[in-house]
Amino acid sequence: MSSIYSYEALPVAEWFRRNRELAGFHNPARALYQTIRELVENSLDATETYGILPNIYIRVSIEDEQKGWASVYVEDNGIGIPGNEIPNVFGRVFYSSKYKIKQHRGVFGLGLKMVVLYSQSTTNKPVYVRSSTIKSDKIYEYQIMIDTNNNSPIILDRREYPNKYKWHGTAVKVYLEGNWPAAKKRIEDYLKRTAIIAPYAEIILKSPDLELWLKRRTTKLPPPPKEGLPHPKSVDVDTVKQMLLESRNMSLLEFLTENFDAVGEGTAKAFLEWAGFNPNTKTTALTPEEIVRLVEKMKQYEGWRRPRADWLSPVGSELLEIGAKAILGAEAVFAVTRKPESYSGHPFIVEVAVAWGGQIPPVDKPLLLRYANKIPLLYDEGADVARKIVDEFNWQNYKIKFPAPLAVITHICSTKIPYASAGKEAIAEVPEIEKEIRLALRDVAKKLRLYLSRKEKEMELLNKYISLAKYVDEIAHNLSIITRLDREPLEKNLYKLIEKKIGLTIDELIKHTLSTQLTQQEETIAAA
Amino acid sequence: MSSIYSYEALPVAEWFRRNRELAGFHNPARALYQTIRELVENSLDATETYGILPNIYIRVSIEDEQKGWASVYVEDNGIGIPGNEIPNVFGRVFYSSKYKIKQHRGVFGLGLKMVVLYSQSTTNKPVYVRSSTIKSDKIYEYQIMIDTNNNSPIILDRREYPNKYKWHGTAVKVYLEGNWPAAKKRIEDYLKRTAIIAPYAEIILKSPDLELWLKRRTTKLPPPPKEGLPHPKSVDVDTVKQMLLESRNMSLLEFLTENFDAVGEGTAKAFLEWAGFNPNTKTTALTPEEIVRLVEKMKQYEGWRRPRADWLSPVGSELLEIGAKAILGAEAVFAVTRKPESYSGHPFIVEVAVAWGGQIPPVDKPLLLRYANKIPLLYDEGADVARKIVDEFNWQNYKIKFPAPLAVITHICSTKIPYASAGKEAIAEVPEIEKEIRLALRDVAKKLRLYLSRKEKEMELLNKYISLAKYVDEIAHNLSIITRLDREPLEKNLYKLIEKKIGLTIDELIKHTLSTQLTQQEETIAAA
Repeated sequence: MSSIYSYEALPVAEWFRRNRELAGFHNPARALYQTIRELVENSLDATETYGILPNIYIRVSIEDEQKGWASVYVEDNGIGIPGNEIPNVFGRVFYSSKYKIKQHRGVFGLGLKMVVLYSQSTTNKPVYVRSSTIKSDKIYEYQIMIDTNNNSPIILDRREYPNKYKWHGTAVKVYLEGNWPAAKKRIEDYLKRTAIIAPYAEIILKSPDLELWLKRRTTKLPPPPKEGLPHPKSVDVDTVKQMLLESRNMSLLEFLTENFDAVGEGTAKAFLEWAGFNPNTKTTALTPEEIVRLVEKMKQYEGWRRPRADWLSPVGSELLEIGAKAILGAEAVFAVTRKPESYSGHPFIVEVAVAWGGQIPPVDKPLLLRYANKIPLLYDEGADVARKIVDEFNWQNYKIKFPAPLAVITHICSTKIPYASAGKEAIAEVPEIEKEIRLALRDVAKKLRLYLSRKEKEMELLNKYISLAKYVDEIAHNLSIITRLDREPLEKNLYKLIEKKIGLTIDELIKHTLSTQLTQQEETIAAA
Repeated sequence: MSSIYSYEALPVAEWFRRNRELAGFHNPARALYQTIRELVENSLDATETYGILPNIYIRVSIEDEQKGWASVYVEDNGIGIPGNEIPNVFGRVFYSSKYKIKQHRGVFGLGLKMVVLYSQSTTNKPVYVRSSTIKSDKIYEYQIMIDTNNNSPIILDRREYPNKYKWHGTAVKVYLEGNWPAAKKRIEDYLKRTAIIAPYAEIILKSPDLELWLKRRTTKLPPPPKEGLPHPKSVDVDTVKQMLLESRNMSLLEFLTENFDAVGEGTAKAFLEWAGFNPNTKTTALTPEEIVRLVEKMKQYEGWRRPRADWLSPVGSELLEIGAKAILGAEAVFAVTRKPESYSGHPFIVEVAVAWGGQIPPVDKPLLLRYANKIPLLYDEGADVARKIVDEFNWQNYKIKFPAPLAVITHICSTKIPYASAGKEAIAEVPEIEKEIRLALRDVAKKLRLYLSRKEKEMELLNKYISLAKYVDEIAHNLSIITRLDREPLEKNLYKLIEKKIGLTIDELIKHTLSTQLTQQEETIAAA
């Protein structure tokens, strides 16, 4: 009987090591992809969030073909990690930069440790880390493993060097069981899609049979997200309890105005009166039941201002257009950044772009590139709300007949992305977000329709010109015989006549019709 | 500068509370579904795994409409939890019944604690637990919350009662923010699909506006999974290190034969020789490098026997047919349980059934019911390998034209289910599993084709009979006038003539053609 009633406590790091599928480490191909993704996203967070233009260098090597071992080295020019923090940041699960309410790529803060755990599980090798913080005099080098039974770092090697050239950033190298041939395509897609959404980043990949140099297309960075406070509609009882514990003995009124987003004194007073609380009650005097009631009322109250969106960092339509043109090689791109909205107290912004023609091949339904907080989403497209909306969209209304060379880019940024699954790969069907995507899509589709109409009209004009122009030669020849005038000026005049008739010079016409990129200035000229 | 370099360690329970989407607790509808699912699956594991026919009683109540609070009560007749273990089992993350290598429903062992964390986060109420183990003299009652900062249980109430009637089992009640109207359909689907795969369970649901009584259809239980050892191809370096630590000082030969599945002395010797290890080397004498090399060689060696499958507990074609007929109301069901196969050292068994006609409505592509380790999978169907195979399957070859009243049931059991995402909702594309599903589907589709052909033939015969029979009346009448014989025996003889001609009595014919369930015995008669 004893055997069926036997229990044990599993150390946290050991639990994650055993359940690594939870974080995307399913097999050697997926694990290699996930490793690169986690390291690159950490690098982007360590740079652009602090106003630094990202330089990211990635090297994948095959270390032992027979064993199926690869190595991944990623180096960035980010803010770096303080020397004494490096062991914990790489060697302790649930240890990370302080939890703040703002938009960030990492959702579960677990990716880096999963990389280390997977790496040591498969090759028994430590992670190599080199880092220096901004203005630091020293560069630190570590070799670290995780003691999974105690969730603590094992430091195998530690060195310090003088930081002569004031380098700052982080370099990481891991050895892992990784299937490069099977992962290559996904990794290439992932990096290219990252370059679309972050055209201010310079990303270099070196690998056995693929070199990518994704150049910086602009030096403009999106505004970094600001740290924020929670919105009163988005907190739960445990969070409020924690906040009350951390707050000094203050009045309810002070507690609300100091700890919550979009709550001024007026709003707080109105709410407390509505909810039946005395604004002067000390927070320490609240009973557990009163705390629960307070949180319920906060959820129900309709008078809050909507959450502020300056915690969010959208890419902006300008950067989206630059990225999509450069990486997709599109003929034309139209992008829009919608105004901030919110769902259940979480602010969000939707951005959508359509890219047309150029190197985009004709497809039966639009190619879809999905992003969430600037992360490209590559898996589970069928489960994503954006795929649903793009498929249901009435493209015929916008002069588009498939097959068409059309790509749609969607980007959702929020302090809380509603992923449909824990795999961080698909956005769930939240009505507020659906509505915004639909409106944004309509905006850009309208611009695309206008562009296509103009292109059509110009094509008609060109055809007209061509059909008239083919007689110029003959007419000029005959006229010159009859009038004894030089043929050349006659020809010129005839062309001018045609140009006058169609209202455009041939140079303008050719430029517009054949141009692969129609900028707004050109549109203005064409419309004039 | 200090603010950008600030780090913290997050307590494990607090981390999970903040990231509850990871375990399916996205919103009040999904959370209510997930809560019922976790509790029901624990109940099934606590009963059938130990040879007990499950009785599961579920009650969902709306506790406060305005606040959106519901409660869920689930009671089972399982093996129960020892009184002193109850607080940890419900109030400590990563504490659970001992980790064993066998098939179980819970993959991450986390569900129950997530139920408690979500419940207290939204309502601040404790979980109520009543339990008694088999043959125990006492029943224990607890009210427990989780201290998320210390990952430890807070016991709010504890009682003991004498167990007069030797009751054993567990009853759990939680209060939570839950949207019953939005979750109802999913929960109904989930329970009905559970009843298909577990027809030996009696499941009762009471709720404000839905009562389900899913009766036990059979008292036959599938053989319980046995506890097993890992296969040498499926272990990683950290696992082997752990095993070496736990093993007494033994020889490598002993270590391999005692700790691994399907490794006898002969196999172990052959492997060690091939890998270049001395069978007599003491395990304590192995260097870290040698351990890594040992594990690599274990992965590469092709001479292992395939993993044993007696850790697995398939449902069996008989139970599948009973469940599908009872719950889907199908006219005919054909099921197959394939032989055990393995991928990366993990054994698995595929079971597939096709259900036809009866209450199944005609559909444009087969209705698909997916299961993994007896858990119904309801979300992310589009990402599942089974959906892909069923859609690509050439149904025309099997006399099936859509729309058709056809449902396909797939069940994969394994010590390690390769989920495509951490949401535990879709099976990834593993070639070995794909092949088995395809072969199984072919098997059952053949049986269905045979069934449909026979039905068609019988229908033809019936039509022939009917077209002949309509003259019997007239002929008998005329004959009786001519011969002056009684009309009745003439009619009888005429019918006999027809029956002789078509080779079946009319009773047999009607029975077969109109019967809603064609058993194998009947098939034998029909073929005779």
